[in-house]
Amino acid sequence: MISAGCAAYGKREGLSARELFSEALDELFSNCPKLGRSDVRALYIGQAFESFEHQANTGPGLANGYGLANIPAVRVDSVSSSGGTSLRQGVLGILSGAYDLVICGGIEKMTTVDTLEAIEIISMAADRPFEQWNGATLTALNALAARVHMRRFGTTEEQMALVAVKNHDNALENPKAYLRKRITVQDVLASRAISSPLKLLDSSPICDGASCVALTRPELASSYTDTPIDILASAEASDSDLVFRDDFVSFKSTRAAVEQAFEMSAMTLGDIDFAELHDAFTINEIIAYEDVGFCKKGDGGKLIESGATKIGGSIPVNPSGGLKAKGHPVGSSGTGQAYEVFTQLNRSVAPSRQVKDSKVALIHSMGGAGVDAIVHILKARWL
Amino acid sequence: MISAGCAAYGKREGLSARELFSEALDELFSNCPKLGRSDVRALYIGQAFESFEHQANTGPGLANGYGLANIPAVRVDSVSSSGGTSLRQGVLGILSGAYDLVICGGIEKMTTVDTLEAIEIISMAADRPFEQWNGATLTALNALAARVHMRRFGTTEEQMALVAVKNHDNALENPKAYLRKRITVQDVLASRAISSPLKLLDSSPICDGASCVALTRPELASSYTDTPIDILASAEASDSDLVFRDDFVSFKSTRAAVEQAFEMSAMTLGDIDFAELHDAFTINEIIAYEDVGFCKKGDGGKLIESGATKIGGSIPVNPSGGLKAKGHPVGSSGTGQAYEVFTQLNRSVAPSRQVKDSKVALIHSMGGAGVDAIVHILKARWL
Repeated sequence: MISAGCAAYGKREGLSARELFSEALDELFSNCPKLGRSDVRALYIGQAFESFEHQANTGPGLANGYGLANIPAVRVDSVSSSGGTSLRQGVLGILSGAYDLVICGGIEKMTTVDTLEAIEIISMAADRPFEQWNGATLTALNALAARVHMRRFGTTEEQMALVAVKNHDNALENPKAYLRKRITVQDVLASRAISSPLKLLDSSPICDGASCVALTRPELASSYTDTPIDILASAEASDSDLVFRDDFVSFKSTRAAVEQAFEMSAMTLGDIDFAELHDAFTINEIIAYEDVGFCKKGDGGKLIESGATKIGGSIPVNPSGGLKAKGHPVGSSGTGQAYEVFTQLNRSVAPSRQVKDSKVALIHSMGGAGVDAIVHILKARWL
Repeated sequence: MISAGCAAYGKREGLSARELFSEALDELFSNCPKLGRSDVRALYIGQAFESFEHQANTGPGLANGYGLANIPAVRVDSVSSSGGTSLRQGVLGILSGAYDLVICGGIEKMTTVDTLEAIEIISMAADRPFEQWNGATLTALNALAARVHMRRFGTTEEQMALVAVKNHDNALENPKAYLRKRITVQDVLASRAISSPLKLLDSSPICDGASCVALTRPELASSYTDTPIDILASAEASDSDLVFRDDFVSFKSTRAAVEQAFEMSAMTLGDIDFAELHDAFTINEIIAYEDVGFCKKGDGGKLIESGATKIGGSIPVNPSGGLKAKGHPVGSSGTGQAYEVFTQLNRSVAPSRQVKDSKVALIHSMGGAGVDAIVHILKARWL
């Protein structure tokens, strides 16, 4: 990975996804002056829903509209992990030998519609015959996981709230984050129930976003930058609908992708200096702690309580603010996580947000309630 | 390519895309008894629109629903060429070394809504800011290309009609085709205008479909089948919106992809025994004749008139019946073309449809009005 760019998250009134993506591309090219538009051989673009902007086949318009003329430009969708899929397909494109240099991006312009319409669109992320028809939204499915987690392991609503508090704290000095506002456990507990036990402040916000990274073959990276980031592993696994699983509180897709990623990278848990984990809902981050292996199954609530996942803790999680506070523009969230890794390892974030001495990071993107998980492990080459 | 499967095209009442895809997978596995479900390492799935079935992130449901458990399963969208994109991403996945064996499929369940709603959904294939807002549908854009082609080269409505007549003739003995009905030039000319000069019978029908192929590494193919098909080239290019181009009657994306594909495969035009070309509208097939190189620019009308592109002619085009008569379930059309190549080269089509002595085939899939083109060249290894 040789460069990255990201539009400011939020309700970006009057700006289309294409304009937001241009904002991200402008930053990507300015972060890497040696990279020219004609060096780019393909574009992968994560976009979950064509319904928000009434726009399918988004790739060619984004590419050719920015002067990345005539390159292959493909839209990929795995809903919340679409950005992770974009990154992974870019990695495979490079490994295949077809492309020397690709841009992997993600977009979602969600504020074109009101909240109820947005929820109707987002509900397409759930399975139609077995979940949607039975009234299960993504929030309801994650609430189910939360309820079982609470009952089985004694996890509390306060512990879940602490995830939101931490991620809001982290977002305070992230100038691109949408919700830069300190909140307390009491604020979370007092916010209205969306699907009990998940409340408004347990949930990531609907917003607009666009982000991108540039990848090249490892041996070409040094001709573009002195500070390339090596992608040591890219792994993915899927699973059946939540309701068909034996276990609601451990996501097999995450566990399988994590296992593959560690094997592929020859890294161990101890090598990971920080992680960006999928936190569309606070319970997701707690379950991800356990499935990635930062604590044993059931101890996620205690881990957040211990402070270990704060910046400055033993294993910082979501120093960006996460999807929870940065914002969750669905198709863009995965490449937004990669942007955070790029800026952290390049030491270009605010000092208060910097994970000190970090060299290796793990990214976890999840689509649906664990129906898809994508894990990347990245390492700064020069550190 | 070691196997392929395809659901019958048409208005498949009461059956979801998932059920149609199972029908295609059943055929794929029955065509290749040595292939087990656990051999499959990833699924790529072309699907243009989540709006028809209110279902995004289609991959994990299709994979895990069929017992292809926990594999990476990614949806790709480049509208009409989504199936071509699925095939191409599968090729890159194999070449990357990440997967030994993948299934590339495509689906579209379009008859869930009435025709007007379907047109509204399909219009998302056009560019929102520059085409949709100005009232341009895909039919209108292709009508514009047809009008310019007629004016510049003297192409006639009768010549366009001949494309429809030929493809309907070819579909007659394709048991999976939707429109198995002989039509005449007069029928086409007398059908109602959709966007003049394109008429109803110049246009491919809205229908349901699902199709898939299995790919493996070249050196593993012979352990699955005695009759593998080698993919000699996979190429793709994009372009700006039609209205921004210098030239409305030659699609740069097709020309660029064709040039790359010939270079990659070390094949020449003379090696191609038949082709499946994108014919969502009759004018598309005429322009594709020229852009692929079967005749010189402007002579496409004369080529169809000469009979050269009939089965038995010097270069048969769309022996399957094409999108025009077989049906055009958007995301599935590209892998449907690959299914035709598989069955033709394996000599499993009706004798009247068989392209005699064919060994090498070219597939051209187009997204939008030439904003994306994907070209594959395939060769039967045993012939």
